[in-house]
Amino acid sequence: MSGVAKSADVRPDLDLATSLFATLGRITRQGRGIVRDSYGAGEQAAHDLMRSTAQAIGLEVSIDAIGNLSMTLPGSDRRAKHIIVGSHLDSVPQGGNYDGAAGVVAGLAAVSALKTAGLRLPFDVAVMGIRAEESAWFDVPYIGSGGAFGLLDPACLGVARSDNGRTLDATLRERGFDPQAIRERRRLHDPACIRAYLELHIEQGPTLVARGLPAAVVAGVRGCSRFRNARCTGRYAHSGAVDRPYRSDAVAATVALLHHLESVWLRQEAAGADLVVTSGELYTDPAMHGPSKIAGETRFVIDVRSTSEATMNLMAAEAREAAERIGREYRVRFDLGGTADSPAAEMDQRLRRKLMTLLEQPFEMPSGAGHDAVVFARLGVPTAMIFVRNEHGSHNPEEAMAIGDFAVGTQALLQLLMDFPL
Amino acid sequence: MSGVAKSADVRPDLDLATSLFATLGRITRQGRGIVRDSYGAGEQAAHDLMRSTAQAIGLEVSIDAIGNLSMTLPGSDRRAKHIIVGSHLDSVPQGGNYDGAAGVVAGLAAVSALKTAGLRLPFDVAVMGIRAEESAWFDVPYIGSGGAFGLLDPACLGVARSDNGRTLDATLRERGFDPQAIRERRRLHDPACIRAYLELHIEQGPTLVARGLPAAVVAGVRGCSRFRNARCTGRYAHSGAVDRPYRSDAVAATVALLHHLESVWLRQEAAGADLVVTSGELYTDPAMHGPSKIAGETRFVIDVRSTSEATMNLMAAEAREAAERIGREYRVRFDLGGTADSPAAEMDQRLRRKLMTLLEQPFEMPSGAGHDAVVFARLGVPTAMIFVRNEHGSHNPEEAMAIGDFAVGTQALLQLLMDFPL
Repeated sequence: MSGVAKSADVRPDLDLATSLFATLGRITRQGRGIVRDSYGAGEQAAHDLMRSTAQAIGLEVSIDAIGNLSMTLPGSDRRAKHIIVGSHLDSVPQGGNYDGAAGVVAGLAAVSALKTAGLRLPFDVAVMGIRAEESAWFDVPYIGSGGAFGLLDPACLGVARSDNGRTLDATLRERGFDPQAIRERRRLHDPACIRAYLELHIEQGPTLVARGLPAAVVAGVRGCSRFRNARCTGRYAHSGAVDRPYRSDAVAATVALLHHLESVWLRQEAAGADLVVTSGELYTDPAMHGPSKIAGETRFVIDVRSTSEATMNLMAAEAREAAERIGREYRVRFDLGGTADSPAAEMDQRLRRKLMTLLEQPFEMPSGAGHDAVVFARLGVPTAMIFVRNEHGSHNPEEAMAIGDFAVGTQALLQLLMDFPL
Repeated sequence: MSGVAKSADVRPDLDLATSLFATLGRITRQGRGIVRDSYGAGEQAAHDLMRSTAQAIGLEVSIDAIGNLSMTLPGSDRRAKHIIVGSHLDSVPQGGNYDGAAGVVAGLAAVSALKTAGLRLPFDVAVMGIRAEESAWFDVPYIGSGGAFGLLDPACLGVARSDNGRTLDATLRERGFDPQAIRERRRLHDPACIRAYLELHIEQGPTLVARGLPAAVVAGVRGCSRFRNARCTGRYAHSGAVDRPYRSDAVAATVALLHHLESVWLRQEAAGADLVVTSGELYTDPAMHGPSKIAGETRFVIDVRSTSEATMNLMAAEAREAAERIGREYRVRFDLGGTADSPAAEMDQRLRRKLMTLLEQPFEMPSGAGHDAVVFARLGVPTAMIFVRNEHGSHNPEEAMAIGDFAVGTQALLQLLMDFPL
């Protein structure tokens, strides 16, 4: 049948979800934390679990040349554009059980419910277990989703895994996948055939916990413009014997620069811009510094994030300009280096509005971290994300998502699937 | 004879000085730098050289219970209060040839000239080679001069040498000295018998080089109030996923604190206070920080120096108050810890004025670093210091003092001796 009536009775399969989370945690825990290493044994165990589960439910299973797993509930029109519900199945080292996996489990819980209810949508729904989203293992963003569309720079095949030093090329071959697909920038999936990409993900910050909300609609994904290896060079000297006019104090100059950037941040925020600015690494040289010395060097990071590329560009330019000016003023030299950029992505307006109607307590917020959704959105695929409340942040063993919150987010996802075409 | 006529013809013995500097450099150089380790082989070699030189000149030599060397030119009245011309003979590890030694060599060059000229002063002049002024070896300030007056806390005998771990107690005994003198707080010299203490020292900052002046009169010695182990504790989190109101960013808070202290410094400076404020160590935790994290911790030093104890106290109080306020504002906890304080010392007004008349280009400036002169001044001994221009700062192998500049400072010292009683 085509045109599916809304059914308030269709509920995500929470038994399945609970079981999947428990098994995932059991088979991929190492010590306190979760280890689902990209293209390693941990990620593979998660893929194997999802695949066997999908087969048990009766979904069609396929694996592309670089290992992305698609588990498809066929629709009434197999040639119609399909919807992908996806996320990644890898984790950072000593990560938590929910980052990534929750999105795949949500997809399975949703299509399992549709299958059980005997509801046939007018299009296929593919639950996608995406490979290698965490750059902690290979310092390459979005290997699985980027590679699915031939978007990776083939040079990334030479990047070594951070723990064992094996290249991405060798690692893909060891798993039986085909690095040639990346080398040839081959499109393994056609964005023109995708009706929408939907991703549920735990919130990685404290906003939903602080606001007492179970879930949120993601307004957009912040991009990042990062001075990864900024440096200030002054001159080491005795802290008591050198008066202000003769100092080249790298710490004082760096403090002045970071303080200035904070003041610009505050102005931008007051003007309504979405922005966060962070220096998460800042250090004098332990081999050279001392309690009675003026510091001759600092190294630091400036990490700028916004859903607006214009705001990121403005902050990067502001940092460069201030470094020049403050460098002169403090008689030091700043070398900020280039920025490593990851793009911002807008979420689809129509999908956002629709999702807002599906939440009892509608709330929109930006995503500060990057997600595979960025790749789909930038290809022009209508893309939406749902955040689920999660305590203690992500990327650590203490991730804590309540199944009730997961149910709220997954219910919205399921209802959105049933409401297509919008 | 008593009452010595001024003699413009009496000049410091620069040949002796040049030879002493050359020999000192030769016998205590290790690799690029100078190593005259406190109570070690390097310092002992310097003491041995000065003693044999003094004996050759015909001075009386004595060594006190903790190894301070006095080389005395007898005056016409042996019971009159004597003048001490002194400085230390140790160096930091990989230090330069002039820090400390210049003051002892200046004393010998001056009394050698008096001896050669047959001028007998109405009082003894003791050139003093003081032990262990650099706390780089034993983390105890002013071991030699403090110990000479029974001022050391006996607990310091348990302090281990930074390189070989041997205690001060064991080290003193190994050299044949008597730690019991420190344990009993024995006075090895009587301050009431000292007419004045005069110390020539290389300037350890760039002021005289920048101003093109060969020497200066020291107005006072800056004390130091130092938060040695300050710490800021926030909460590690994802740099993109946590918005401002939920952050506990230790770097941002530390930047705010240090920036505030700089603004107070500028106000104090504008009001005429003598002050320098330095954070020479500042670091996030390399085991925990990351480019996409908000930093959960910083450790840092705040080093405050002034010739005025009131100014130091004001700044320490300001730091504590600001840490409270900024800690609340940024949702972090500052633990500044206690301050390690070394006192400021005023130089004798009459001696300063007199010395100013003896310089062709009179100039007064504070000393930013501590010196043995502080110990004498705080005992009530009329104390004066002369700075000699020195390139590249001190405590490094590049110390560079021209013998012509040394001659200017030593001439003033010699003339001051001859002009007593003032």
